[in-house]
Amino acid sequence: MAEAAAQDLLLAAAFVSDAQYNRNIPFKTSPEAVRLYQLYNHWMMRTATYFFIFLNLSLALFEEPAVYPLPFLATSVLEVLCLLVFLGRLTHFAKVTLHNVFWKDTKNICIMVAILLSLTDLAIYGVLRLYDVRSIRWSRIVRPIFLINFAESRQIRRAFRSIRNTLPEITYVFLLFMFSLLMFSLMALKLFGERNLQTAEGLPYFRNYLEIVFDLYVLVTTANSPDVMMPAFDFSSWYALFFIAFVIINTYIFMSLFLAVVYNNYKKHLKNEIRKLAYMKRRKMIEAFNLLKEKEGEQFVVREARWKQLVKLVAPDTSSSHRELLLRISDDEQKGFVGTVYLPWDQADPWHSAADKKSFVQLADLLNIQVVTLKIRRHPLARWVPALYGSAPSRLLRSVLRHRAFVWTYDTIILINAIFIALDEESPYISYAEWVFLAVYVLEILLKVYTYEPREFFGKTQFWNWFDTLIIFAALTATILNATLKSTMKYNSQQILDIVFILRVLRLIRIVDSIQRFRVIMNTLINIVPTMLTFGGLTLVVYCVFAIIGMELFHGKIQYFPANSNTPHALECGNPALKDSLFARGKYCKNNFNNFASSFIVLMELTVVNQWHVFANGFANVTAQPAKLYFIAFHIVMVIIIVNIFVSFILEAFFVEYSLEKSEVETAIEQKIQELGMGVQEIQDSGCSAAAHVRGRDTPGGRRPFL
Amino acid sequence: MAEAAAQDLLLAAAFVSDAQYNRNIPFKTSPEAVRLYQLYNHWMMRTATYFFIFLNLSLALFEEPAVYPLPFLATSVLEVLCLLVFLGRLTHFAKVTLHNVFWKDTKNICIMVAILLSLTDLAIYGVLRLYDVRSIRWSRIVRPIFLINFAESRQIRRAFRSIRNTLPEITYVFLLFMFSLLMFSLMALKLFGERNLQTAEGLPYFRNYLEIVFDLYVLVTTANSPDVMMPAFDFSSWYALFFIAFVIINTYIFMSLFLAVVYNNYKKHLKNEIRKLAYMKRRKMIEAFNLLKEKEGEQFVVREARWKQLVKLVAPDTSSSHRELLLRISDDEQKGFVGTVYLPWDQADPWHSAADKKSFVQLADLLNIQVVTLKIRRHPLARWVPALYGSAPSRLLRSVLRHRAFVWTYDTIILINAIFIALDEESPYISYAEWVFLAVYVLEILLKVYTYEPREFFGKTQFWNWFDTLIIFAALTATILNATLKSTMKYNSQQILDIVFILRVLRLIRIVDSIQRFRVIMNTLINIVPTMLTFGGLTLVVYCVFAIIGMELFHGKIQYFPANSNTPHALECGNPALKDSLFARGKYCKNNFNNFASSFIVLMELTVVNQWHVFANGFANVTAQPAKLYFIAFHIVMVIIIVNIFVSFILEAFFVEYSLEKSEVETAIEQKIQELGMGVQEIQDSGCSAAAHVRGRDTPGGRRPFL
Repeated sequence: MAEAAAQDLLLAAAFVSDAQYNRNIPFKTSPEAVRLYQLYNHWMMRTATYFFIFLNLSLALFEEPAVYPLPFLATSVLEVLCLLVFLGRLTHFAKVTLHNVFWKDTKNICIMVAILLSLTDLAIYGVLRLYDVRSIRWSRIVRPIFLINFAESRQIRRAFRSIRNTLPEITYVFLLFMFSLLMFSLMALKLFGERNLQTAEGLPYFRNYLEIVFDLYVLVTTANSPDVMMPAFDFSSWYALFFIAFVIINTYIFMSLFLAVVYNNYKKHLKNEIRKLAYMKRRKMIEAFNLLKEKEGEQFVVREARWKQLVKLVAPDTSSSHRELLLRISDDEQKGFVGTVYLPWDQADPWHSAADKKSFVQLADLLNIQVVTLKIRRHPLARWVPALYGSAPSRLLRSVLRHRAFVWTYDTIILINAIFIALDEESPYISYAEWVFLAVYVLEILLKVYTYEPREFFGKTQFWNWFDTLIIFAALTATILNATLKSTMKYNSQQILDIVFILRVLRLIRIVDSIQRFRVIMNTLINIVPTMLTFGGLTLVVYCVFAIIGMELFHGKIQYFPANSNTPHALECGNPALKDSLFARGKYCKNNFNNFASSFIVLMELTVVNQWHVFANGFANVTAQPAKLYFIAFHIVMVIIIVNIFVSFILEAFFVEYSLEKSEVETAIEQKIQELGMGVQEIQDSGCSAAAHVRGRDTPGGRRPFL
Repeated sequence: MAEAAAQDLLLAAAFVSDAQYNRNIPFKTSPEAVRLYQLYNHWMMRTATYFFIFLNLSLALFEEPAVYPLPFLATSVLEVLCLLVFLGRLTHFAKVTLHNVFWKDTKNICIMVAILLSLTDLAIYGVLRLYDVRSIRWSRIVRPIFLINFAESRQIRRAFRSIRNTLPEITYVFLLFMFSLLMFSLMALKLFGERNLQTAEGLPYFRNYLEIVFDLYVLVTTANSPDVMMPAFDFSSWYALFFIAFVIINTYIFMSLFLAVVYNNYKKHLKNEIRKLAYMKRRKMIEAFNLLKEKEGEQFVVREARWKQLVKLVAPDTSSSHRELLLRISDDEQKGFVGTVYLPWDQADPWHSAADKKSFVQLADLLNIQVVTLKIRRHPLARWVPALYGSAPSRLLRSVLRHRAFVWTYDTIILINAIFIALDEESPYISYAEWVFLAVYVLEILLKVYTYEPREFFGKTQFWNWFDTLIIFAALTATILNATLKSTMKYNSQQILDIVFILRVLRLIRIVDSIQRFRVIMNTLINIVPTMLTFGGLTLVVYCVFAIIGMELFHGKIQYFPANSNTPHALECGNPALKDSLFARGKYCKNNFNNFASSFIVLMELTVVNQWHVFANGFANVTAQPAKLYFIAFHIVMVIIIVNIFVSFILEAFFVEYSLEKSEVETAIEQKIQELGMGVQEIQDSGCSAAAHVRGRDTPGGRRPFL
């Protein structure tokens, strides 16, 4: 009996923590399965999975064409190791999931197929290599599948789902846009084709229909404006009207339309996801309740003791006062049990019923709310040397430090420091000044730690204190290291100097924190950083795929030689086909697909869009004209879709931050805290908005959406 | 007594039509004043005002430096004429407005000051000219004030108000952005300043702090990517990280933040404006009601006869059946009078109470709804030659034309035509084919007019029918004209040929109309065209101001010489200072500020952003380095503010079109029509969305917002 109760508790805890993290895995309900499941979700297991995913992706750095070459044997052993880890992780997952659910999930099938493909390709390539036959490692483009499809990276999967849902609508707008492009190209052919005009490079202007389409597509991205217009404009000023109409219709209206379609779908999709999550959370919480419920009069309830056991199991690191607080909120009238509200989900508004008071169901939400338990700790020095710390000079010092003028003084010092940084480094006085400034900053930190309680000063939410301290101590270390190297070995390490310079400038950011309006904007930006990482993942996936294809297509076609090289065709990037091309004239030779890192930088430049046609033409010259399709495809995927999703995300995040109100559950907690006379600390003044404190994990990226 | 009643009616009509058009002029209430007010609002008076505003603006084309030079006497007489017209218009306005309201309104003061300034400047310039002293016509930059401040252009004023409200928030983000820019520039100076690197043009790279700031500002606009990175990247690949961080933070995050701030304010501002308008409308309608009300039992009402008189006065061109319909809606139970709902505005939701049934107050909304009275007219031919029109072959022909296959046939013909257009013009067969295609299109239009009732076919909402017919007949005229010229004078007029080409290609647009999904997008775009004209006005104002300043600063500094010119420095745009500059190498000489039209084209190119730094450097070389500030200012005003407002507008308009639901009043009308058995025509199939038919004038730009 006791064992059955313990098992129920374990299972209920699994449900609750699943609801807490919005996971949706219908795990097996045997105790061993639940323990396996908890192991599966352990942070170490998840970190290890991420590690191997990134190891697998970064293998491209060491494989041919390599940035840091490793023998084929080493990379293939590493790859097999990664694949084995993935297989192990998948098997672990299969063990905790219901059989039919596991095999219905496409992402599991995807992973298995990807593992199989990778192994097959590796084997074939290895065998062919033994016989010295060069083949293509085509399976490398399936590697990002692991990043997308492992349950840990659901944010990225969500973004991909969002893209998939947007595709049909985008496609229609895109077709209309292409139609407009083709029509304008036809007009351009008719208007300019037989005028024998020449471009600034002396090439024929607007003769070939396909070239016109490409040139006008580039104009949509504005990359060849106004060059593409100049020959026609020089011929007759009236022709400018053609290009103005083209730019208004295609660049301004159609590109805004793409953003509108993407943003509209993004909002719609976000709303649906949140509804689904809320439904799932509620269902899990009711399942947990059913496991623990006991009859009490007319209704089923969970008794206080079991409730406490459950919370201890789900969140072992909450303090007992925190637990007590949560219980007081759930059991408002102190009846000794927690009830639930039995409303079928679709009858009631899921937000309100889930947040209903006196309900067991709200537990997951309650646990998600960060309540900073602030013990009014005495300063350690006040305990160790109370006489000294409490003496008059010490008290005076501390009150000076808490004064506004202290902040202003340091802001002035920072401004003076900025001027010193901008001045020339050569004068010895200025390099002495650097030591003075460092000392002043270190002194500031020491004084602050003297005044404020250290554990409070370095609290989890004190972003700027951490930032300051890290920057100053890194600068101190690097400066000392540099000075030591210089005095002992008469040698200036360029890397260390660069880091010192950067750290020195970064110190100046602190001044932003002193101005209230700037702090609000900065905090908005800092708050959206975690979700931005999703876009980092998304970009990584797209970049990996395009980089691997790009290396196969363009590897070795363009070489970079240093300025003083004697190699023939050094100025034409080692390829006579580039003679007189804009690519060679722009000295773009180092932008090539010769290894994984270079490819990433080229793709970054293509994302920024400007001059992408020079790249497209350059690489088309050294391979074949259809190579331009690669660049157009990248533009459509990256700029039209992903950058627009990124902008949508920033817009939405910004609007949410600006219209942020506390949720009902948060208000309930604060109210209860006040009732209990604990006092709510307003954390605004310590440099971090209160919003950051009461943020739940309800929504993707941890933010509440418009509903 | 009768006269007083007539006066009341007149005044009430003035109130109602004011409410209908959302005007907010507290006019005097004497009958003469109301008549003067109606004259003031007459469409001819308004058109005349617009004409003189644009005449005044276009004077810049004829004044020194002129596109089409006119003697100073002619332009100054024209300007004085314009100013007199403005003064007359203002006096007219003063006569109908209450004294204290008129003098409190800043826009009236603005107009008076602008007129005074213009006259003073004109007089001074004229006198100095007599003594051959060259001075600046500085008052020309106040000319756009007339476009902004005349009551007719309230849309533009609204946009300016929106900008003004956005400014404080934009400023904070901008300052933070500038801080980030200055910090990165400082880092760049420290990292690259002492490396002795050179740009692709062989100039020193990143030596001077101010130049670095400018270069990095240009990088934010992406215009000099990747060139600005290449020297550092060639030196060490790691330095690419600096530029990647810079682009992510400044180009992607900060620029999106600007859009977010602008869009957020745009939405907020739109909401406020609509609330204000709804309040105003309701107040005016209640005032009109109070003038006409009579006691009926317990409540005040407006009797049917007066109501009808009123409607006749406000909208003289509504048919009697339409009037009857509106009465039936307002007087639902046919009691012979129309009542009102007395709710203070702020107590009730203005939208719902204003749209409440059985209310007088809704009259203005009712009048705004376009109800297309479709008489099922018989075809004129059926009346004139009934035997022939009703015969079996004629009926067969008409049913063929109404068949889907007929549309498909013509779509195929259009596609074949597209191929013919793309083919070479030289072959005589192809120019014969052009005649065949023209004949086929003319035949189509004739057949359609034969099948459908002509007045229905050329209805107000049949955009595509009008488009087709205009394009075909313009093409026919131009082609015949061209053929005549060619055969009689052996001379091909280039202008006519160009127009023929453009018309030929425009014909192909028709194919879009055949595909439902494309039609929806096209209709959305066509529906937002009127509001886009507001942005045209806004852009015109900014362009005018910058063009006039630009002409003062850069006039004559850069000259364009045709390619075969022998002038010295022809390749350097007539200015040795441009030797070896990117400006001269790009052959940008025709992009100059030598006259009003050229200035507009340069500003257009600067709006598109790409290569703007080449322009800025070019013009700074021929004048002075601070000239760059002009280009930076233009970028901030035009790209950061106005283009973002334009994008916000497209986003909002698109969302509204996609989430379009009929308003309550519209539904009420449709319901009543159905009750009366008149039948609502669904207009979707005739190529125009129903939404276009039931659109009110409630909101700026005629669209309903999110609320």
